[in-house]
Amino acid sequence: MTVADVSIEQTMTAMGRQSRQASRAMAAASPAAKNHALELMAVAFDANRNRIKAENAIDLEKGEANGLTPAMIDRLRLTDARIDGIITAVREIAALPDPVGEIENMATRPNGLRIGRMRAPIGVIGIIYESRPNVTVDAGALCLKSGNAVILRGGSEAFHSNTVLAGLMLEACREAGLPNGALQLVPTTDRAAVGALLKMDEYVDLIIPRGGKGLIQRIVNDSIIPVIKHLDGNCFVYVDEHADLEKALPIVINSKTQRTGVCNAAETLLVHSAVAKSFLPGCLAELQNLGVEVRGCERTAELGSSIVPATPGDWDEEYLALILAVKVIDSFDEAVEFINAHSSGHTESIVTRDYDRSNEFLRRIGSACVHVNCSTRFSDGGEYGLGAEIGISTDKLHARGPMGLRELTCAKWVVLGEGQIRG
Amino acid sequence: MTVADVSIEQTMTAMGRQSRQASRAMAAASPAAKNHALELMAVAFDANRNRIKAENAIDLEKGEANGLTPAMIDRLRLTDARIDGIITAVREIAALPDPVGEIENMATRPNGLRIGRMRAPIGVIGIIYESRPNVTVDAGALCLKSGNAVILRGGSEAFHSNTVLAGLMLEACREAGLPNGALQLVPTTDRAAVGALLKMDEYVDLIIPRGGKGLIQRIVNDSIIPVIKHLDGNCFVYVDEHADLEKALPIVINSKTQRTGVCNAAETLLVHSAVAKSFLPGCLAELQNLGVEVRGCERTAELGSSIVPATPGDWDEEYLALILAVKVIDSFDEAVEFINAHSSGHTESIVTRDYDRSNEFLRRIGSACVHVNCSTRFSDGGEYGLGAEIGISTDKLHARGPMGLRELTCAKWVVLGEGQIRG
Repeated sequence: MTVADVSIEQTMTAMGRQSRQASRAMAAASPAAKNHALELMAVAFDANRNRIKAENAIDLEKGEANGLTPAMIDRLRLTDARIDGIITAVREIAALPDPVGEIENMATRPNGLRIGRMRAPIGVIGIIYESRPNVTVDAGALCLKSGNAVILRGGSEAFHSNTVLAGLMLEACREAGLPNGALQLVPTTDRAAVGALLKMDEYVDLIIPRGGKGLIQRIVNDSIIPVIKHLDGNCFVYVDEHADLEKALPIVINSKTQRTGVCNAAETLLVHSAVAKSFLPGCLAELQNLGVEVRGCERTAELGSSIVPATPGDWDEEYLALILAVKVIDSFDEAVEFINAHSSGHTESIVTRDYDRSNEFLRRIGSACVHVNCSTRFSDGGEYGLGAEIGISTDKLHARGPMGLRELTCAKWVVLGEGQIRG
Repeated sequence: MTVADVSIEQTMTAMGRQSRQASRAMAAASPAAKNHALELMAVAFDANRNRIKAENAIDLEKGEANGLTPAMIDRLRLTDARIDGIITAVREIAALPDPVGEIENMATRPNGLRIGRMRAPIGVIGIIYESRPNVTVDAGALCLKSGNAVILRGGSEAFHSNTVLAGLMLEACREAGLPNGALQLVPTTDRAAVGALLKMDEYVDLIIPRGGKGLIQRIVNDSIIPVIKHLDGNCFVYVDEHADLEKALPIVINSKTQRTGVCNAAETLLVHSAVAKSFLPGCLAELQNLGVEVRGCERTAELGSSIVPATPGDWDEEYLALILAVKVIDSFDEAVEFINAHSSGHTESIVTRDYDRSNEFLRRIGSACVHVNCSTRFSDGGEYGLGAEIGISTDKLHARGPMGLRELTCAKWVVLGEGQIRG
C-alpha cells in the first residue's frame, strides 16, 4: 500500500464512522424532518441552476477531452429540463409514504405476547454508480427518506456535477436538522477509495452498485459487505398454444418496441409450434415494419422473410436494441426449461388462456418478475406502485425486482409483553 | 493450486451443477412430495439407529484420539434420546405450513393489473457448520421443506455421522420422487472444498454458516456468494425509571438464568439511577443467590456486596455463563445510546410503564429483536411462532432474528393481466 492509499483509507474510515453515527440519528428522524430536507433540496436545486450547470460544464469539457462517446456525454449533461426532472423526482420521493415504523403481521401468541415485524432503516448504504449525475439525487433522496445514512461514490467523469449536487443536499439536510454525515460523497476519484469502502463492514451495511456488468462483478468479488446487484434483463415473452392471439400480438410488439434501451424490454420470443403458423407470419411482418431485426430458429425462418439465422448466443443476449430472437418450441415444459436456462432472471411473460399453465408458469419460472397476459415493460417500480425505485434487483435475497423505499429498510422483530417470562 | 485442489474443485463444480438442476425441480415439487420425503427420513432414522450409532462411534473414537474436549465430545454424541429428538424435529418440520407459493399484498393497479409477491425457493443453499450432527438433519430438512436444494458441509469431526444421516435423507428424497441432487453432503473433509464452494456463485445462491466467530469471519471474507451470519448475542435488559419493579425482577432473573449458554440470554443489565436504590439491592442479592457473578459499575457496587468491578470490556462481552454486567445510567437516552453502541444487535428488552418510552425504545434500538416488558429468552423461532429455525440472524438484509422457513424463501413479483400493454 502506498502512502496515498493509507491516507485514502483513513479518509474513508472517518467517513464510515461519521455515517454510522449519523445512521443512529437518521433512524429516529421524524418523517416531517426527512421530508423537509427533501423539499429544501428541491428549492436549492432550483435556486442554484447556474452553479449546477457551470460545474456540469467542467465535467462535459473534460469528458470531451478524454474522448467520451456522444452517448456518454449526453448521459452526463444536465440541462434545465433535466434539472426540472431532478426536482420533480425529489418532490415525488418526499410525497411517498414513509416505510419506517410500519409493523407487519402483528399477532398475539398463546402466552399473550404480541409479536410483529417493524420496518427499520438498514443503517448505512453505499451507492457506487457511473456517469448519470441524477443518480446522486435519486439514490441519495431514497436512502434518506428510508431513514438511512448514505455514502455516494459516483463516476469520476461526473465528479464536479456530483459534488455540487451532493453539497446542496447536505446543506438541506443540515438546515432540516438531519445529522451531519447523513449524506456524504466520496471526495476523491481515486479507485482505492472504492477498495477501502468495500472492506468497511463495521460501518457500512449494504452496497448497491449501479453500472455495467464489469463494475458490478468487480464489486461483488471485492466486497465483504452484502451487495444487491442490478444486472441485465434478457426478458422472454412466451406465446402458448392456448394464447389469445389477438392479445399476444400487441403484448409482443409492446414488450419489444415500446422502448428498447431498457432492461424490461423483451429480447426473445418463444412461440408454441401449435400456433406458430397462425401467429408468427403476421407478428414477424409487423415487427419488421417497426424496424425490428428478427433472429429466428429454422422453423421461424420458414414463416417469415428476411429472418437472420439465430446462433446459440442469441438466446442469452440482451440486445437493448430493435432486435428480437424468435424460437418455435414444442411444449409448455420446453418453454419453461428454456426460459429458466437462458433468461437473466429479470422479467418473463406468458400469453395463455389456460388456467393451469398460467399458474404453473408463475410457480416454475425462477425470475424476479413473472407476468401473465401483459407486457414485460410493466416491471418497474412506478408501474408496480412502489413509487421511485433505486433499481431493479436481479438478486434473490432481500430485494428482488423493482427496489423501492421498502426494500431500503429491513424488518426487526418487536415483542410487546406484560411481564412474561419463559418457563 | 495442487492437483488435489483441482480435483476437489471439479468435484465441487459437479455438485454445484447438480444442485442447480435439482433446485428447478424442487421449486416445482408439491408440498405432499416434500412432506413424504421428510416422513420417510423419520422412518429411516428410526430403522437405522444402530448404523447411525456405529458411524457416530467412529467419530467419537477419533475425536477422543484427537483430544477433543469433553464438551465437544458430548455435542458430537448421538444417543437414542438424541436420535428421537432428530426424528421429532423432522416430523415437526413436515407439519409446518409450506411457504412456497404464498402470495403477499396482492392489489389491483388502476390499469387492472393485479400485482403481488409470491414466496419462492431461493434455489441452492450451502450450509457450513461445526460439530453437532443433528444440524445435518435440521438444516437439510428446513431447506428441502422450503423447496431449496441444499449442499451440506459439516465439520470433519462429525464426518461419519453426517455421512450416514445425509445418505439416509438422500434415499428418502429419491423414494419420494424428489430430484437427485436435492440434498448433497460434501464428500471430503478437505478445507479446499469450502474455498471452492464459496466461489461457485453460478450454482449457489446463499451460504449460511453455523459455528464460531472465526469460522463465520473466514467465510464472509472469502465468499462471493451472499452470506447470512448468525453471530453472538450480547443481550441487554434495561430497567427504566418508570418500570414496574415487580415485573422487572422476574424479567431480569429469567433473562439471565433460565438458560445461560444460549445467545438470547441477557449479559448486561442497565438500571435507571432513579430506581437503582429501590431495585438493585434486592435484585443483586437474588442473582447472587442463584449463583450469578455480578460485574458492576461503581454505583452498582455501592448497592450490593461482593460485586466484581466491571472493566470496559464487560459491556461488550457475551459470557454464556452465570455472569451479568450491571450498570446504573442516568437517562433513557443514555440507555438507548449505550445499548446501540455495545450490544451485538441480537435482542434487548426494556421494562417500563411509560408509553412514549416503550415506543421510542422499539424505534431507536437497532437490534434484530426488541422486547418490551418480557424476557430476552423469548427471541427464538419456536417462541415467535415460526416453528423450527435454521438460526438467529444478526444480519440486517433478507433475514433478521429467528430465521424459519419463510426466510429460506424469497419473494418474486407476480403480475396477472388481461392483455395490458404499456402506453
